[in-house]
Amino acid sequence: MHTELCERFGIQYPIFAFTPSEHVAAAVSRAGGLGVLGCVRFNDADELDGVLDWMDENTDGKPYGVDVVMPMKIPTEGKSVDLKAMIPEAHISFVDRTLQQLGVPPLPEGEGREGVLGWLHSVARSHVDIALNGKHRPVLIANALGSPPKDVIDQAHAAGVQVAALAGAAKHAMSHVANGVDIIIAQGYEAGGHTGEIASMVLTPEIVDAVGPDVAVLGAGGIGRGRQVAASLALGAQGVWTGSVWLTTSEYANLNTNAGMTEAFLRASSADTVRTRVYTGKPARLLKTKWTEAWEAEDAPTPLPMPLQNLLVADAHSRMNSAGNPDVISMPVGQIVGSMNEVRPVAEVMADLISEYEETVKRLSSL
Amino acid sequence: MHTELCERFGIQYPIFAFTPSEHVAAAVSRAGGLGVLGCVRFNDADELDGVLDWMDENTDGKPYGVDVVMPMKIPTEGKSVDLKAMIPEAHISFVDRTLQQLGVPPLPEGEGREGVLGWLHSVARSHVDIALNGKHRPVLIANALGSPPKDVIDQAHAAGVQVAALAGAAKHAMSHVANGVDIIIAQGYEAGGHTGEIASMVLTPEIVDAVGPDVAVLGAGGIGRGRQVAASLALGAQGVWTGSVWLTTSEYANLNTNAGMTEAFLRASSADTVRTRVYTGKPARLLKTKWTEAWEAEDAPTPLPMPLQNLLVADAHSRMNSAGNPDVISMPVGQIVGSMNEVRPVAEVMADLISEYEETVKRLSSL
Repeated sequence: MHTELCERFGIQYPIFAFTPSEHVAAAVSRAGGLGVLGCVRFNDADELDGVLDWMDENTDGKPYGVDVVMPMKIPTEGKSVDLKAMIPEAHISFVDRTLQQLGVPPLPEGEGREGVLGWLHSVARSHVDIALNGKHRPVLIANALGSPPKDVIDQAHAAGVQVAALAGAAKHAMSHVANGVDIIIAQGYEAGGHTGEIASMVLTPEIVDAVGPDVAVLGAGGIGRGRQVAASLALGAQGVWTGSVWLTTSEYANLNTNAGMTEAFLRASSADTVRTRVYTGKPARLLKTKWTEAWEAEDAPTPLPMPLQNLLVADAHSRMNSAGNPDVISMPVGQIVGSMNEVRPVAEVMADLISEYEETVKRLSSL
Repeated sequence: MHTELCERFGIQYPIFAFTPSEHVAAAVSRAGGLGVLGCVRFNDADELDGVLDWMDENTDGKPYGVDVVMPMKIPTEGKSVDLKAMIPEAHISFVDRTLQQLGVPPLPEGEGREGVLGWLHSVARSHVDIALNGKHRPVLIANALGSPPKDVIDQAHAAGVQVAALAGAAKHAMSHVANGVDIIIAQGYEAGGHTGEIASMVLTPEIVDAVGPDVAVLGAGGIGRGRQVAASLALGAQGVWTGSVWLTTSEYANLNTNAGMTEAFLRASSADTVRTRVYTGKPARLLKTKWTEAWEAEDAPTPLPMPLQNLLVADAHSRMNSAGNPDVISMPVGQIVGSMNEVRPVAEVMADLISEYEETVKRLSSL
């Protein structure tokens, strides 16, 4: 499983692991992959700075990456409070009513949160600035919303850091390459989080052919086993981008405040996800729960556009995800959730990915 | 690309080709795959008998299969005219209005059709009876709707014919195996025609694991290139089930009365399909056209259940598909349509599938 990306980043396996947990990211990097820390949860750039210090110290000198959520076009934005004024009353009362109907308790006193602001351009930019402040040693900045602005790409390149961008269609991939992006993440329909309608089986080779042999493509969506890594490389990817599979690792438990969430993942089948706009305003695949079902009811309002929808539901997310009820959580996950059936250490998941990959290639070669 | 299925059926490559065209099916069998003739279009069993005579004579002694559309439970059914009485007036007037708005001319005098009756249990059963009447030499009966009734499975087995069934979820696959089905076709979300929501990347290994090593699984959905064949076998399939890719072969033109349809396929991207109930009443992936868009309008009625929906739209299909307008056709096709960009002979498509597969396995082995 040695591709050009292994040389480029000094990694042993071209397995890229997106995760909001520094513990998972560091463990993946230590195991020979590339851990990529999701930054969207850091409202406070100083907190990210501290976490990247921790990454620097806990990766045995191995490389790692960061992931930001940044629209290419710089939007008009205000402070959280200005944006909140744009949220219709009917939406707010629907959320309140739904939480009440689903029996979600308020947050414990003093635990109110500001909501996730990482969707805002200014906050995402502060993540880039911290990652590139010269103290840390990321090798990759990935952007969940496609091409970052040109000056961010230039800033990364000046620091010797590569830029990756998610794409759900070949035309977007080509536009990312034209904008200076180095690596395309071909995000298939089956993936968790923001995703398009074209499945990996079709999307990966389409993007590989569209961007040509000089641009590396990572296959994303539906990858949690070695057979899927082999399939993705067969489709022409130079590596894989994984996410969901790390949500049931032991290391993730450090971040997971909700035992119900782990239970929900472990019991879910591949049919228990839904692609919906209720998380951020753009289509994203989530675990199917009573919360996502409530938004599909006849009387439910239409989700708001990004970034308003996430501001609308941020408190609700905190409340649900603190409450420990596996039936009522809000969490992105891909269709691979059906094969996430036990909590295991990152190193074990990595070892399985690699050994099943090797068996698969051996089997194929013998046919 | 030699799996146990090659031995079982006496074929060179485990490439199964579903097609309504006997010309395509025979050409695939002659090229070393297994051509599987779709029977749903034969309202008249004698016509199928004649076509299977032709298959027997034009396959150089190579094996072939047939595909029927048969619910496991025998439904209450009447003649076409009784069922038509169950169709609401509002649906009929919506179809009439839509055809008028889209400028679809009536059929030429004398070309009125009865509508496709192959969806009816009695008609599907007549297809099985013809296939197994002892005159013909099919090696496989595939059923698009899952397990056929027990007596049909027994009838096939008594004739030495294997039975395959489509499944869009692991639990359905397991139930097919319990019913006596020999081969599972794992039909991913990206496939044309009737399909579920789980993409091939996740579905194939899930079904392979669920049915165990003694039951062969064919990967279906998104397969039109050798890289995709390799990916599907990497995922654990023993062979692939293809369909869409044959719609732009030269041999298919014998069946295709509408030059506009070929044009529509050639120009479509992978984003130009939609999963909808408008074709048969069950979710099926179709080419996205002005016809499918009309059914998504606010004022459009909800599609009727199977088999009523197909009876409702059968005349409309005939009219649209005779009219030659690539913007207004009704045709199932998978997301692979984005890579169907020229009309080529079956033998050339087969040769490309095989050579790209071989290159892919060689590339994987060298990593």
